[in-house]
Amino acid sequence: MDTNQIDPTENFFAIIPAGGVGSRLWPLSRASAPKFLHDLTGSGQTLLQDTWDRLAPITKNKLMVVTGDVHARLVAEQLPGLSKENLILEPSPKDSTAAIVLAAAVLYKRNPDVIIGSFAADHVITDQQKFEAAISASIKIAATNKIVTIGIVPTEASAAFGYIKKGQALKQGPGFEVAEFVEKPEMKKAKKFVANGKYLWNAGMFIAPAKLLLQVLAKTQPQLHAGIMRLAEYWDTDQQEQKLHEIWPELTRIAIDYAIAEPAAKLGLVAVVPAAFEWHDVGDFAAIAELQSQGKSNNLAVLGSARVLSDSSSGILVSDTNRLVALIGLEDVIVVDTPDALLVTTKQHAQKVKALVEALKQTGHSDLL
Amino acid sequence: MDTNQIDPTENFFAIIPAGGVGSRLWPLSRASAPKFLHDLTGSGQTLLQDTWDRLAPITKNKLMVVTGDVHARLVAEQLPGLSKENLILEPSPKDSTAAIVLAAAVLYKRNPDVIIGSFAADHVITDQQKFEAAISASIKIAATNKIVTIGIVPTEASAAFGYIKKGQALKQGPGFEVAEFVEKPEMKKAKKFVANGKYLWNAGMFIAPAKLLLQVLAKTQPQLHAGIMRLAEYWDTDQQEQKLHEIWPELTRIAIDYAIAEPAAKLGLVAVVPAAFEWHDVGDFAAIAELQSQGKSNNLAVLGSARVLSDSSSGILVSDTNRLVALIGLEDVIVVDTPDALLVTTKQHAQKVKALVEALKQTGHSDLL
Repeated sequence: MDTNQIDPTENFFAIIPAGGVGSRLWPLSRASAPKFLHDLTGSGQTLLQDTWDRLAPITKNKLMVVTGDVHARLVAEQLPGLSKENLILEPSPKDSTAAIVLAAAVLYKRNPDVIIGSFAADHVITDQQKFEAAISASIKIAATNKIVTIGIVPTEASAAFGYIKKGQALKQGPGFEVAEFVEKPEMKKAKKFVANGKYLWNAGMFIAPAKLLLQVLAKTQPQLHAGIMRLAEYWDTDQQEQKLHEIWPELTRIAIDYAIAEPAAKLGLVAVVPAAFEWHDVGDFAAIAELQSQGKSNNLAVLGSARVLSDSSSGILVSDTNRLVALIGLEDVIVVDTPDALLVTTKQHAQKVKALVEALKQTGHSDLL
Repeated sequence: MDTNQIDPTENFFAIIPAGGVGSRLWPLSRASAPKFLHDLTGSGQTLLQDTWDRLAPITKNKLMVVTGDVHARLVAEQLPGLSKENLILEPSPKDSTAAIVLAAAVLYKRNPDVIIGSFAADHVITDQQKFEAAISASIKIAATNKIVTIGIVPTEASAAFGYIKKGQALKQGPGFEVAEFVEKPEMKKAKKFVANGKYLWNAGMFIAPAKLLLQVLAKTQPQLHAGIMRLAEYWDTDQQEQKLHEIWPELTRIAIDYAIAEPAAKLGLVAVVPAAFEWHDVGDFAAIAELQSQGKSNNLAVLGSARVLSDSSSGILVSDTNRLVALIGLEDVIVVDTPDALLVTTKQHAQKVKALVEALKQTGHSDLL
């Protein structure tokens, strides 16, 4: 059958790897309640729920979530539309390759023509129309046996993201070959990238036939590939749980960028679709503050139920206690008020929260992580 | 009997008016637990206890405390040496004249030769020897029928205190006549005062024969004087409580500076003894921070039991919760962490806390005051 005759969107299935602690968002984001389980935008929904709502109309509710088994209850509560067979619970963190490729292998077993898309659970995208258009174009290119990443057109030089360098334009649609993936650059380099015009932000979203992903992994990480295939073999059987706990601990821990995206790019298998929608990875409190302040008059952003008295015209207060919080004479301040830990810093120092979490680990405060 | 033959110190009795909310120390200092009930110096004792310990050796434990009746329990707990007959409980706040002069009138009734000294419950004085020397000299001058204030030799120009201008040197001891009391000046004026050399800080401490105080009040505030004398008449009788609740509400509310000190100065009845000891009125968190940082290497001052991670080299954290507090990249910060309210500000804005408390009153947050 000629694939051109079938709408490849019919075979599209979204995977949401919901992992990562988000330590730069401590003390709000914790090992027990990572950032995707929080409402960081003031939308009234968590980032995970927003992600679900963004993808459900495109996939007609065909979504699979991969998350740590400690989050099973909260994820199920937050996503009532998620069926049990589409929730993969990792017994332990094994980085993105094991999570995404296991999901892809399970979906491939169920439908060998499946085209998967992988979308982080903790990103913010508000322009649904442009998002859908980019996905739609990417699916069509993926159907030509490509791994298609979505590259965000940069709005500023940023040292916080990796970049994707566009190569030749594809014959089909709005895609380009990927010349190169570039890791997070220095600011000086980031400025050059943005001026150059060929560089896009790597938002970590990609769309590909599951079959192709598995083929690439078989070449680059044969042992990991074998483990995942063996696990998939038992999936949807009554041995699923037993084999998961047997095989999972042995899987190689590696990011999908290194296991698949970069080697596949060198093989000419990766395309990029530029997308000009607004995209935020909400990496730290400064990012949340900026997100919150968009289109608002000068004032402190407030997330949560705090009673606040403040004369600040910038910065952010996040509170999940019911205390009164009074802020006087502070600009660009970040205050995060939780029942057992309080963080006070400034937007300029938002990135240092990660080091703080490390320091907490080393000083015996693991109860607070 | 010639008074020169008796050591007037034998007749000395200290009064500690323990009042005032200390709203610039909110949310630590509250109506229910004002600043004198807190350890603000890290001494391990409250300011009230420090005040007691400073005076007890001088007066041989002859101390009277005047405080709001809501503080009865905490004051009694903190001062086990205070006998019940030397604790006056105000049914409502009536400013300093009623508090101090009622105490003086009661002591006068018990001993007509009594020389009283009045000392705020919330000041910090560390040089006990110089303090005792100043008191001792003041008692001797007071015994010559003077109201003797202690004037602190300024260590810097300050707009936070009132000033006392020295007049003629007295024949006796280290005292001077008081030329004038000056209210808190503008900074420009404060600088002139300090350069001039004749101006001392008014620390609100004074020593005087109770009889003289009562005589002055009889002239300046005859109605208030009459009320207090009637109350004193019933004191130490079984009608004490009944009359207190009957008469107290009618007493004029006026500061002792206006009712006694200033008019008496115009009558030539007030002397000042300059004292060069270190003195702090711990008026706001900036003052506490400075007090805490004295003689210490550059770091954040911490009061209370908080677990702290901080890279700040200045500022102060006050915490009576057991939360972990993390401060990153902040200088001169003030963080006050209490179970129901959190304050974050900077030393530069410490004085604004008073206005904040006003705002809280007006926005219906009286539960937090």
